[in-house]
Amino acid sequence: MKQLSEVFGDKKVLITGGLGFLGSNLARRLVELSAHVSVVDSLVPDQGGNRFNIEGIEDRLEVQVADIKDTEVVSRLVRGCDYVFNLAARTSHVRSIEQPLEDLEANCRSQLLFLELLKATNRDCRVIYTGSRSQYGRALYLPVDEEHPFNAMDTNGVHKATVEMYHLLYSRVFGIRCTCLRLSNVYGPRHQMSHSRQGFIHWFIRLALSSQNIEVFGDGTHQRDFIFVDDAIEAMLQAAAEPSCYGEALNVGTGIPLTIGEIASRIAARTGCTYDLVPFPEDFLNVEIGDLYLDVSRIMRMTGWAPEVGFDDGLDTTLDFYRRHGDKYWNDADANMIR
Amino acid sequence: MKQLSEVFGDKKVLITGGLGFLGSNLARRLVELSAHVSVVDSLVPDQGGNRFNIEGIEDRLEVQVADIKDTEVVSRLVRGCDYVFNLAARTSHVRSIEQPLEDLEANCRSQLLFLELLKATNRDCRVIYTGSRSQYGRALYLPVDEEHPFNAMDTNGVHKATVEMYHLLYSRVFGIRCTCLRLSNVYGPRHQMSHSRQGFIHWFIRLALSSQNIEVFGDGTHQRDFIFVDDAIEAMLQAAAEPSCYGEALNVGTGIPLTIGEIASRIAARTGCTYDLVPFPEDFLNVEIGDLYLDVSRIMRMTGWAPEVGFDDGLDTTLDFYRRHGDKYWNDADANMIR
Repeated sequence: MKQLSEVFGDKKVLITGGLGFLGSNLARRLVELSAHVSVVDSLVPDQGGNRFNIEGIEDRLEVQVADIKDTEVVSRLVRGCDYVFNLAARTSHVRSIEQPLEDLEANCRSQLLFLELLKATNRDCRVIYTGSRSQYGRALYLPVDEEHPFNAMDTNGVHKATVEMYHLLYSRVFGIRCTCLRLSNVYGPRHQMSHSRQGFIHWFIRLALSSQNIEVFGDGTHQRDFIFVDDAIEAMLQAAAEPSCYGEALNVGTGIPLTIGEIASRIAARTGCTYDLVPFPEDFLNVEIGDLYLDVSRIMRMTGWAPEVGFDDGLDTTLDFYRRHGDKYWNDADANMIR
Repeated sequence: MKQLSEVFGDKKVLITGGLGFLGSNLARRLVELSAHVSVVDSLVPDQGGNRFNIEGIEDRLEVQVADIKDTEVVSRLVRGCDYVFNLAARTSHVRSIEQPLEDLEANCRSQLLFLELLKATNRDCRVIYTGSRSQYGRALYLPVDEEHPFNAMDTNGVHKATVEMYHLLYSRVFGIRCTCLRLSNVYGPRHQMSHSRQGFIHWFIRLALSSQNIEVFGDGTHQRDFIFVDDAIEAMLQAAAEPSCYGEALNVGTGIPLTIGEIASRIAARTGCTYDLVPFPEDFLNVEIGDLYLDVSRIMRMTGWAPEVGFDDGLDTTLDFYRRHGDKYWNDADANMIR
């Protein structure tokens, strides 16, 4: 494993989507490592960007509220950058099925423009792109390794794969050193809590902390791979620091399956809330992927990284964060808003 | 193998890109099989659409000059269709690198709109989408089978893969029965001959028939998989006729490697032209893929189809066609136009 303060100290780093869940946790860590951090975020409502996410480090980084399509702002930010963590994305599985063209515009077109700009202004920087396990869709075998075909069950998953292919293409053809990560279900502080369209665990936590009942869709036996955000951030940094990862696509997760019922039960045990099994809503049925957890041996082998935070500890940290700061992430008046 | 006249006779079939190379050859065959054929083609200059391609069958099919994005025209055409052969595409490797956003718009956005329209108006039809070997990029092993990862070397190859993923997604999630084919280098009558951006073999033929010298880039030892158009059309029809192919992506080629130098030499032997080896132009170097030929055992096993036309016979038929009709495909005044 690389000594991260040596790799990133005094380096110029840009984070796209830097006020969001992953972006802000990454920004905090990079500031701690003495990097010169800029973040760009469009603060599109409901997508997760939140100024409170950088509370306490506001004076130690540059914040630009802009879309990555805003060539003028972005070309200034990427100039001289050593590393770009390219996290900006629109994420919603069910909605991407309903509005696929919007998803194409917000994800593929924006990212292609961004890579064109990098190609024109700074081919020397190193780029980390964060895709997701949704590229794999329904697993043909478990655990899912990087050779598993893309069988996305929603348009967002197809577009995540497309944007990964853009990065690998620009790596091969234009020599921009890109590494692509495929993240499993990441949880922890600073995730948006205003709707459930970006995964259920934070929604369960919000319901629990608002003294509401949790509804688990289906029989609760579906398995997922949950990784605490600090572990995911460390994986991103180690992958960025390791030259042999350039041009590669690597899974990031724990590789440990947990059932959705088990998650609900552990949240309930800590908060005193209750949970029920209810049938899947119709719009989820078609895109439900069954069990999915990742084989993460490749990134472990290539970087020496390994996840360190057990689920119970991660959950305690997360609950503690939202107990203290829930008012910055949701408003009880909207408690019955759309899923 | 299915008896194709029983499968397609009296069936309503739409071909997008139906005035182009593959589309028009397919239309001719389907008319012969007594299908009710409609073609839609935007006749974008230089892309291959040519009214002469349907010479002699004009009265036996419906022709609409429109883009597949033209919802009004297309929704009328797809209504009640039994089969859609979805061939409309912008194809240019080098240009897609120079103008990636144009390629995104013309390929991904148009196809997503088209599939949305199918989903809204006719989920019962069967769809054949033609992707290409360019999705694979540089081969990691040979022959390239369907499990080979997508390593496209140009934006067009990424978008071909994206559109394939759209089709498989709409197949899985919305039940539209789609089969995706990945075609190797197809050659034969009715290909555009006005520039070399859609592959070199037709360009060699044009130069030879115009008594010009052929320039082979590199040392001429690169291998490709050439399939005669009649064989490719038969594969498309057999795949459409075979229900077990729905939801699958299948290679179509001969599986037989031929070097580019050998192709030039066989054309020269038949036409009396000469050929030289010249260095790759700079804009080709980055996107050159080396050797590539396909493993086509999967489609052979699933449908019983096999290629039947040997390269020498296919080349003779092709040369004969352009000797007779070259004036419909190029104008000697533009002989020195851009590659």
